[in-house]
Amino acid sequence: MTRYEALATTLAEEIRAGHIPIGSRLPSLRYVIAQHGVSQSTVLRAYYLLEEWGLIRAEERSGFYVTPGAGIQQAASTQAATLAESAKVDISDLVFSVLDAARHPGIVPLGSAFPSPLLFPSARLLKSLAQGTRSLSPWSTVADLPPGNDHLRRQIVLRYIGTGLSVATDEIVVTNGALEALNLCLMAVTRPGDVIAVESPGFYAALQAIERLDLRAVEIPVDPVTGLDLDALAVALEKHPIRACWFMTNFQNPTGVTLSVEKKKALVELLAKREIPLIEDDVYQELHFSRDRPLPAKAFDTKGLVMHCSSFSKTLAPGYRIGWVAAGRFADRVQRLKLMTTLSASIPVQAGIADYLQYGGYDKHLRKLRNAFKSQLASMDAALRRSLPRDVRWTLPNGGYFLWLQLPNAVDAMALHRRAIGHGISIAPGPIFSATHSFENCIRLNFGHPWDTSIDEAVRVLADILKS
Amino acid sequence: MTRYEALATTLAEEIRAGHIPIGSRLPSLRYVIAQHGVSQSTVLRAYYLLEEWGLIRAEERSGFYVTPGAGIQQAASTQAATLAESAKVDISDLVFSVLDAARHPGIVPLGSAFPSPLLFPSARLLKSLAQGTRSLSPWSTVADLPPGNDHLRRQIVLRYIGTGLSVATDEIVVTNGALEALNLCLMAVTRPGDVIAVESPGFYAALQAIERLDLRAVEIPVDPVTGLDLDALAVALEKHPIRACWFMTNFQNPTGVTLSVEKKKALVELLAKREIPLIEDDVYQELHFSRDRPLPAKAFDTKGLVMHCSSFSKTLAPGYRIGWVAAGRFADRVQRLKLMTTLSASIPVQAGIADYLQYGGYDKHLRKLRNAFKSQLASMDAALRRSLPRDVRWTLPNGGYFLWLQLPNAVDAMALHRRAIGHGISIAPGPIFSATHSFENCIRLNFGHPWDTSIDEAVRVLADILKS
Repeated sequence: MTRYEALATTLAEEIRAGHIPIGSRLPSLRYVIAQHGVSQSTVLRAYYLLEEWGLIRAEERSGFYVTPGAGIQQAASTQAATLAESAKVDISDLVFSVLDAARHPGIVPLGSAFPSPLLFPSARLLKSLAQGTRSLSPWSTVADLPPGNDHLRRQIVLRYIGTGLSVATDEIVVTNGALEALNLCLMAVTRPGDVIAVESPGFYAALQAIERLDLRAVEIPVDPVTGLDLDALAVALEKHPIRACWFMTNFQNPTGVTLSVEKKKALVELLAKREIPLIEDDVYQELHFSRDRPLPAKAFDTKGLVMHCSSFSKTLAPGYRIGWVAAGRFADRVQRLKLMTTLSASIPVQAGIADYLQYGGYDKHLRKLRNAFKSQLASMDAALRRSLPRDVRWTLPNGGYFLWLQLPNAVDAMALHRRAIGHGISIAPGPIFSATHSFENCIRLNFGHPWDTSIDEAVRVLADILKS
Repeated sequence: MTRYEALATTLAEEIRAGHIPIGSRLPSLRYVIAQHGVSQSTVLRAYYLLEEWGLIRAEERSGFYVTPGAGIQQAASTQAATLAESAKVDISDLVFSVLDAARHPGIVPLGSAFPSPLLFPSARLLKSLAQGTRSLSPWSTVADLPPGNDHLRRQIVLRYIGTGLSVATDEIVVTNGALEALNLCLMAVTRPGDVIAVESPGFYAALQAIERLDLRAVEIPVDPVTGLDLDALAVALEKHPIRACWFMTNFQNPTGVTLSVEKKKALVELLAKREIPLIEDDVYQELHFSRDRPLPAKAFDTKGLVMHCSSFSKTLAPGYRIGWVAAGRFADRVQRLKLMTTLSASIPVQAGIADYLQYGGYDKHLRKLRNAFKSQLASMDAALRRSLPRDVRWTLPNGGYFLWLQLPNAVDAMALHRRAIGHGISIAPGPIFSATHSFENCIRLNFGHPWDTSIDEAVRVLADILKS
């Protein structure tokens, strides 16, 4: 651990122990330099790290303040109990009842899983669709069967190279969005009855897949500030015959937390020792607010055990349904499952996306998109601070478009969801993010939509419901 | 049974018993009128029916001749033995080894599952893709989640209405091709260990799905001339706890046989009595050579038990990956499974196909396509008659683009496949069409490609290999 990381960890402990209360200003640079005997740049870097963790926030010209997220750690730790046994999963009815309610047009989509489609370059994409398909040979209907369109797969590999990863074109299988990639990966490495490690709270689609395939789940706690609990995972690996893990390493859904590089390395090593495959869901990777794209766990995989799944649905082309997996040693098996279940992703659309990636200005679009999300997060954070009772906690994620809120213990998020729908507002209640329907007092809010008065008003209404 | 059907059945029995040998001319109209005491129109209609069954062929100005297909019935009856027990399925490796060999560019695609992409209106489709997407709201990415694009679903319902079926828009779920529809239907009504009735010979994807989902198969014999053996099915229903059936009622793959209307009715009634769902694969329905589109079994379904699956992949837009199911009482379950596994079919492509169906001239294209297949069948039949030994049997299907050939018993179709690949020709060997790898002396040939010298030559080479 470097000096600034050590300092950040110490300060984080003080903050989370309540020694530096939420809302209060952090000690001045001069004070911390003197107290810890470190340089000014070390303190500043430690502060930036605390900001990345969502524990503090810089206010222009007045210093750093402890954010509401600093009090949120309880949400995860209460879940450690579920480690005791693997569970059959029964979540779909709950998830669908929540999602169906939120699909009604006119609902303020704070519970939505999608960002606003208005933030995507629809017209430019259609141009690429026309351009990319014009030169498409009719024979591509056979040639572009899995693993997929060659041009697209090469463009995807180029983006991996841009992050310093060496991924072979051969391990890329193009899918109908990341959701299919994740499901195919799970099918590729499991049989009914197998035990899978998932995050808690975690993406409900993982739970639905486990339910659908008659698997069993072991939930590993996710701390909204530090991420997946690797110690708990190590214990679970001792206790259960875990066949595979399904984790999000960057801007995790629903907490928004990102694993540090060290934790990613440690995770890959822990699983590699036991030859356990990791299904890595990395659909928000491109939506980082810091300068650099965060690395996936895949970057540290030397054994081909990590199946890195992503898509263009959250960053470019929702509805086009183009995703992929870099499936390592499982590429052949995934490709066969794809051939058996949906044959291939739509061939003109693959060609269109490939054309866009080469000529459409993806990086420029991503910069705009990240800035939009970042400023929408600031607006959401400000609105929450204005309206919510002081005992509500939330983190400030460093990417993606989800906020995870921890409400007072007495609040029932499912009841809040039902009342909010009555007011024309959707939220994503905590219980849909765990097999045990826990996180009863948590909700996930979407800040992926351009800030406007209806969202502002929705936050105020939510606060009013909470207070009543 | 009408008078002409009775006459056709009598004549078919005489033909199949060998009383009227293969290649010989049928008795003159005058003779049959006198012998059976029926009118000339009854004899003619009986002859047309025999032609539809592939038992006879009209030669211009010289009368009707018994076709090689008249001797093919043994292929099915040898399979009745498999009724004794349901079986775990292990077919995928075999299927993929055959399909992979056939994907090599330059191979004469007699083993292909696809028709020639050159027969489809690619340019007109791209125009529709541009037109259909131009007016697409960005919000469709949420609104067009399953069950799918409304415009497309209405266009699909209109085609059902055109065949006299009343199908509700509500039961249509748009999928990534028929293959996904079939797989979702199977998942919707089964759990691991369940027993499924399939055809033998039958479409290998059904067997792959059964293998993948840990189900068990009972194979019901399919006679290449009269189709599915309903008596065998009735016995199987007594003997096995069959949870669902997966059958092709029109231009069955691989035999090309179509069930009569009476048999379709009887099938639906047999299953309805036991409340057993029928997954009806009807992807070749539009490719009929007679005037009228054949009815699906779905037409006789009063209980919502028939899930009618089809697509545009074999008739219009291979590679676009748009199919659907009219799922009856299972529509909600299928829709949820779709949401959980691949979320939705590509939204711009759905809009493009909808636009084409409304403005593109689908029926005109279909007429051209059917005529092409019909004339290609005639060319293939002529080439086979020219080259093949006299003891090879094949039917003349009344639609689709597959011929089923029965070779002499001593021939090993897998060995033939391997030798043919060595000569740059693919065929689909019989063993990939049954769980028990039977039909060792049968092959399926594709006549979906414009006839040319390379195909003509390929048939000659196949015949040479056979003779050696």
